[in-house]
Amino acid sequence: MSYFPNIGKINYEGAKSTNPYAFKFYNPEEKIGGKTMEEFLRFGVAYWHTFTADLSDPFGTGSAVRSWDKFSGMDAAKARVEAAFEFFEKLGVPYFCFHDVDIAPEGDSLKETYQNLDTIVAMIKDYMKDSKTKLLWNTANNFTNPRFLHGAASSNNADVFAYSAAKVKKGLEIGKELGAENYVFWGGREGYETLLNTDMKLEMDNLGRFFHMAVDYAKEIGFDAQFLIEPKPKEPTTHQYDFDVATGYAFLQHYGLQDHFKFNIEANHATLAGHTFEHELRYARVNGMLGSVDANQGDPLLGWDTDEFPTDLYSTTLAMYEIIKNGGLGRGGLNFDAKARRGSFEPEDLFHAHIAGMDAFAIGYKVAQKLIDDKVLDGVIENRYRSYTEGVGKDIVEGKTDFRKLEEHALSLNEIKHESGRLEHIKATLNQYLLRAYAE
Amino acid sequence: MSYFPNIGKINYEGAKSTNPYAFKFYNPEEKIGGKTMEEFLRFGVAYWHTFTADLSDPFGTGSAVRSWDKFSGMDAAKARVEAAFEFFEKLGVPYFCFHDVDIAPEGDSLKETYQNLDTIVAMIKDYMKDSKTKLLWNTANNFTNPRFLHGAASSNNADVFAYSAAKVKKGLEIGKELGAENYVFWGGREGYETLLNTDMKLEMDNLGRFFHMAVDYAKEIGFDAQFLIEPKPKEPTTHQYDFDVATGYAFLQHYGLQDHFKFNIEANHATLAGHTFEHELRYARVNGMLGSVDANQGDPLLGWDTDEFPTDLYSTTLAMYEIIKNGGLGRGGLNFDAKARRGSFEPEDLFHAHIAGMDAFAIGYKVAQKLIDDKVLDGVIENRYRSYTEGVGKDIVEGKTDFRKLEEHALSLNEIKHESGRLEHIKATLNQYLLRAYAE
Amino acid sequence: MSYFPNIGKINYEGAKSTNPYAFKFYNPEEKIGGKTMEEFLRFGVAYWHTFTADLSDPFGTGSAVRSWDKFSGMDAAKARVEAAFEFFEKLGVPYFCFHDVDIAPEGDSLKETYQNLDTIVAMIKDYMKDSKTKLLWNTANNFTNPRFLHGAASSNNADVFAYSAAKVKKGLEIGKELGAENYVFWGGREGYETLLNTDMKLEMDNLGRFFHMAVDYAKEIGFDAQFLIEPKPKEPTTHQYDFDVATGYAFLQHYGLQDHFKFNIEANHATLAGHTFEHELRYARVNGMLGSVDANQGDPLLGWDTDEFPTDLYSTTLAMYEIIKNGGLGRGGLNFDAKARRGSFEPEDLFHAHIAGMDAFAIGYKVAQKLIDDKVLDGVIENRYRSYTEGVGKDIVEGKTDFRKLEEHALSLNEIKHESGRLEHIKATLNQYLLRAYAE
Amino acid sequence: MSYFPNIGKINYEGAKSTNPYAFKFYNPEEKIGGKTMEEFLRFGVAYWHTFTADLSDPFGTGSAVRSWDKFSGMDAAKARVEAAFEFFEKLGVPYFCFHDVDIAPEGDSLKETYQNLDTIVAMIKDYMKDSKTKLLWNTANNFTNPRFLHGAASSNNADVFAYSAAKVKKGLEIGKELGAENYVFWGGREGYETLLNTDMKLEMDNLGRFFHMAVDYAKEIGFDAQFLIEPKPKEPTTHQYDFDVATGYAFLQHYGLQDHFKFNIEANHATLAGHTFEHELRYARVNGMLGSVDANQGDPLLGWDTDEFPTDLYSTTLAMYEIIKNGGLGRGGLNFDAKARRGSFEPEDLFHAHIAGMDAFAIGYKVAQKLIDDKVLDGVIENRYRSYTEGVGKDIVEGKTDFRKLEEHALSLNEIKHESGRLEHIKATLNQYLLRAYAE
Repeated sequence: MSYFPNIGKINYEGAKSTNPYAFKFYNPEEKIGGKTMEEFLRFGVAYWHTFTADLSDPFGTGSAVRSWDKFSGMDAAKARVEAAFEFFEKLGVPYFCFHDVDIAPEGDSLKETYQNLDTIVAMIKDYMKDSKTKLLWNTANNFTNPRFLHGAASSNNADVFAYSAAKVKKGLEIGKELGAENYVFWGGREGYETLLNTDMKLEMDNLGRFFHMAVDYAKEIGFDAQFLIEPKPKEPTTHQYDFDVATGYAFLQHYGLQDHFKFNIEANHATLAGHTFEHELRYARVNGMLGSVDANQGDPLLGWDTDEFPTDLYSTTLAMYEIIKNGGLGRGGLNFDAKARRGSFEPEDLFHAHIAGMDAFAIGYKVAQKLIDDKVLDGVIENRYRSYTEGVGKDIVEGKTDFRKLEEHALSLNEIKHESGRLEHIKATLNQYLLRAYAE
Repeated sequence: MSYFPNIGKINYEGAKSTNPYAFKFYNPEEKIGGKTMEEFLRFGVAYWHTFTADLSDPFGTGSAVRSWDKFSGMDAAKARVEAAFEFFEKLGVPYFCFHDVDIAPEGDSLKETYQNLDTIVAMIKDYMKDSKTKLLWNTANNFTNPRFLHGAASSNNADVFAYSAAKVKKGLEIGKELGAENYVFWGGREGYETLLNTDMKLEMDNLGRFFHMAVDYAKEIGFDAQFLIEPKPKEPTTHQYDFDVATGYAFLQHYGLQDHFKFNIEANHATLAGHTFEHELRYARVNGMLGSVDANQGDPLLGWDTDEFPTDLYSTTLAMYEIIKNGGLGRGGLNFDAKARRGSFEPEDLFHAHIAGMDAFAIGYKVAQKLIDDKVLDGVIENRYRSYTEGVGKDIVEGKTDFRKLEEHALSLNEIKHESGRLEHIKATLNQYLLRAYAE
Repeated sequence: MSYFPNIGKINYEGAKSTNPYAFKFYNPEEKIGGKTMEEFLRFGVAYWHTFTADLSDPFGTGSAVRSWDKFSGMDAAKARVEAAFEFFEKLGVPYFCFHDVDIAPEGDSLKETYQNLDTIVAMIKDYMKDSKTKLLWNTANNFTNPRFLHGAASSNNADVFAYSAAKVKKGLEIGKELGAENYVFWGGREGYETLLNTDMKLEMDNLGRFFHMAVDYAKEIGFDAQFLIEPKPKEPTTHQYDFDVATGYAFLQHYGLQDHFKFNIEANHATLAGHTFEHELRYARVNGMLGSVDANQGDPLLGWDTDEFPTDLYSTTLAMYEIIKNGGLGRGGLNFDAKARRGSFEPEDLFHAHIAGMDAFAIGYKVAQKLIDDKVLDGVIENRYRSYTEGVGKDIVEGKTDFRKLEEHALSLNEIKHESGRLEHIKATLNQYLLRAYAE
Repeated sequence: MSYFPNIGKINYEGAKSTNPYAFKFYNPEEKIGGKTMEEFLRFGVAYWHTFTADLSDPFGTGSAVRSWDKFSGMDAAKARVEAAFEFFEKLGVPYFCFHDVDIAPEGDSLKETYQNLDTIVAMIKDYMKDSKTKLLWNTANNFTNPRFLHGAASSNNADVFAYSAAKVKKGLEIGKELGAENYVFWGGREGYETLLNTDMKLEMDNLGRFFHMAVDYAKEIGFDAQFLIEPKPKEPTTHQYDFDVATGYAFLQHYGLQDHFKFNIEANHATLAGHTFEHELRYARVNGMLGSVDANQGDPLLGWDTDEFPTDLYSTTLAMYEIIKNGGLGRGGLNFDAKARRGSFEPEDLFHAHIAGMDAFAIGYKVAQKLIDDKVLDGVIENRYRSYTEGVGKDIVEGKTDFRKLEEHALSLNEIKHESGRLEHIKATLNQYLLRAYAE
């Protein structure tokens, strides 16, 4: 039985192909900079958007047409696993990601929820034996159930803190069982609706305590996944505690957690926080905190999380530029935390959307690598900052100077000579590199 | 004497050229869809950003290095004309645009201002004789001088209304003298700082009266240029009366002016108003109101008018798509209302920036024409809306039905069958067309 | 049986009352400017937020605890009517508003949906006999069901247009049956997800046709309610056709509908469109198009429709200022299109929230009337624009001048003398008036 | 000679006063919570906006009418000092703040700039002897001059780093000379225009080095002022390194500077970064980093720094709430980093604006203290978080539990019982407290 009977294995057919069910740019075996695309790009499918969610929005009920929705409860959960692995294989992706509630329904009690999870995890483990697709990361959904309405680890209610801990504990065990490379924390409710009734200090302290306990438990059970925090500024809360990477980094340092965590950076969350995607990647990279990526895009004119599939080639190019400069994502990957639009409700759209995203990142990868190979931006930077390689600049960088010496130097200067930053020319060059991606 | 001694005529050298002072995509003589690029794209240079402004920002004084700035007053104005025509010729652009104060300094009295203008207009006219570069449009700057601090035609002070009228009257005469194809109204101060001290009705009524007088005077002197309103939502005012195209269109209809005006649409103003550039173009187009374009781009993460040179190929492609669908811009054109960044302060950057913009629109033009030739989007639309070509849909479009008949039809329906909008696939196709622009 | 057994009739107890279930400022019988608060403020309860919705958000399922939710289907619908009228009576509100799907569940067919509606409408009519609470307006929900995923009257599918027509036809009949004072059109799906697959002209033309048919049908059945369009810029669509009041006004004029419609202005929609609430009210007012108000507020730092209960006294004051200047809202009213936060999930919160909103508008009303009585802003405006009452200003306003005469005047001017707009002093004065609302 | 001849000493006349040149709420000698308003509020006048700037905007030249502008160069600088101290005395403010370039013009060389500064600093010192007004803080303007176009301490040019160091060194000496209580760093150009030509790591490292040298030099000369960083997200740069308090805190921790700095928090910068003013204050407070405040307000619908005088009583109340909870601002104060609007160009407006701001904070102070005295919010919080004072909650807070024990507890739970957050009722209560500020 097939859940996608009309669609076969997606193959690379090259840029001239007009087959909508073929990759035009993503060639898993093509080597770029010494690694194959498949090895370096480490794409992941998001279980929630692809198999569980229904394309509802705040003003409309779900529109998704999914053949496994004819089942319900645990039967639907099992059908979803079958559909998922069929999808993974047809798409040829190396990774997937999930929240606990994506794969198995909550039961009437936590115990029953555990049982449901155990059943499905065993089934997934079984399917993984025959699949090349591995688990990039899993996580606990501590935000959908009304139980978390006042927060999870930052709830005002200690019972909810305990319940959240139990769910993460189980998540760590599941991650270990399925060989997850990372474990993600997205704190959808870890923030506030209003400061008027919020004890921000207690809530942040508790969040710090929670993360320490998670680190301890992972160590205890020998689960060596990379821990990742996923920043988001707001939505569903009015203000989340991990607003952006910098805020998360301040938090981790304050609570002595910076050696145990890196960041899972989502493009759409970056723009909602007032940053470009590449800013968040760069900031994490230069601070040694770039862990993984939620590959999607937002609409810059909309104020909510649209989770679109990434197709903007400027964005994929600049993202891949940071990732290559980082030496890759290590154990992280490019998880498509993205959903087809509500109007793209057919199962075929799931393939179109992933193909669009994978092709977009493949192009971004090629363009970024070429920019690096040709030292396009590196050359600019090397030249722009050359004053720090000698004289007073060298002294500054090497810590051999102070305000007195610098003042003496400043008083001796006649005129300070600047050079243009040449942004317009650099942008035109970037366009040339982009347009050559296909031609060459 | 040359103002740009290091730079010669900018030629088309093709996509593989690495000469920073060459066009890679803009080939003025290349024919696309029956017209040459030069005929169809109708590029214009903005006098203010390119020759007059100094790259200051609210937190910094001007950084621009311009050789004509060694002069002052009318001498600087004359040097600017010389520099401008050297620039036009080297760049090979067919059009330019200016505000009155860009070309000549204000005098101590309106009379002296007129004299300054007359001198420079005569000089420009003389230069135009030997130049292929024509005047796309001119306008009156009724916003910089503190005289306009409470508005121009919408000022609370009738003297200012009169002064504004005099400046526009002179502008119309100058436009006629120099053969301008259009006359533009950008109401930088036609809005309010606060409603608390504003008589919005009187101000809008006065604005309507002002436009009628302008129409009358142009008719009187036989100046047949297309009149254009340039919408902008805010900045410098808190709220401008021509917020966006739709607001301007409501205004024109209310005051019976819709047959005398079209819109000059600026990309950056569109995004500041919460619309895409292509939305504003489309809305104007389908209402028969698309006149001309201020070709630039904003930064979606910044809340002010950045007036960047246009380099985003998605934006230039979708803009050119609307323009081709409009049958071109008629007497309008693509005016680069754009400035090099404050860090791009050298004269060379003026060339880099214009080349970047012209190449970006040349690519956009090619991609858009190819999309149209291949019926990529037209095919989608024809298919999506086919239900309006027969049966109940045809009756709706032809006005042959009513709520009673439609209810009868609705009651007879079993299930309404939808088809996916296929947005993700369309976006992937758009990427393919973009990447093929250079290769083919 | 009571749905709110712990809560009695809400009475006015004055500003010093600490009873959370009492009005502190809203005194229905208090006369201001010749009318009682109850007569002038014309408050309405929104059926959807108060009785039907469950406080879910995009990342969480419903949290609302409602005693009528123990029922389902038509039983729940009936219980909701009982709860609603108990609520209306306890709160003492003169109006309520609903969408069709708020009051009765959709059936398996349109016919069955009609039957469900008929049953509940009859029940409501019956309850209205013994209640002072009247129907401010009703409307058809043409956005929640996936049937409307590509639009309703602007759908690409003619069957959906017909279905939408049938629902509005029924809505008009229900409005007539229940004596609605207005009929509202909120086009949640009347916009586009992307221009790439959208025929904007056909969609807007169809929308125009739809409104004409609605006008015709209301006339045919003798339903004389005021028709209202409710603008919103975006959400759920990427871009809605009635973006703001000005856009709606352009549309109405273009399609010759301006005499048949006014606007229902929502505070939160105003701010999402980049306007203040009072701007939208003022713009509608001076164009004679102010019909009714959806009284709520947004969070200026959040990019989505939060629909908070209105408590910002600056906003309620400036809104009431426009409404008083408009001579009241005519047949319109102040409908609380607002929901308690997801964390305010108890039935008691419905009372707290409405009391908060009603008190806030009562204060706004008092402050605004006092500002008018004391000619605080009117005095400023009269003085600021006095130049239009004589001389050249009078000529401008009376249409007795032209550019030639104005130029002559301008040339004769020496210096233009401005006066400060005194915004800071006006704002301080506004604060004084606000703070005196309670003391005097 | 007087620079403000029409205006006398501003006195407290009480809420019923209609004298526009009197305080209605700010009574310097009134005691609240044990301190006088003057002691606790520590207001400061910003030299730049009040005496130096000209009310220009990006589209208009200066409109300010200032009697000292008849002078130029050092004469104007001296007149400004005289005007400033006349203004301070008439207003009765305890503090003022300045950038180096506000008080003295730059010379042709750094040496000459120093000399100009020395002259004016001596004059200010002399004036301070007879004045109660003290220096809250001073700073170096390392952003206006084109020298800083690529940054100051984060410039790509080491000479600029040195020049910036010299200016800050001089600033520290001036601060010491004049007894400044704080020294502020606002890095207007410490960010980037584009990542494409930026070495973010080197720039941030250099910024870290710069701050360490500043700390060292202050220590060396025995200048014990509190060092303050003033976060701002963007403008003039596309992205600044001290985006908000959290970002600044991450930076300080990363570079080991957290013990030497606190934050100077500006309301308008907070909102531009996507936070409320009170959020930034709270975040700084709970992390022990709240130093001082730039008291102003932005326009939530405008995307640039409007620096309005603070009149929003909600904002001043919630700000004062945080400040009282912080035990006051220590050596910090409330500096009015605010300018009258361009239309409020008369000298009188400087008084109106400061009176408006001082009255607004006086009310905020009274309301906030009353909220605290009555335990309005504290009571809510104590009750909401009570679960952390016993049982499992107490164990969490005291670090006596782990994931295993918490899971055990979670498995034992039946249903988690939540209570409403009561936000609507709290907001209504806040309104009551606000309205009672004047009455009681």
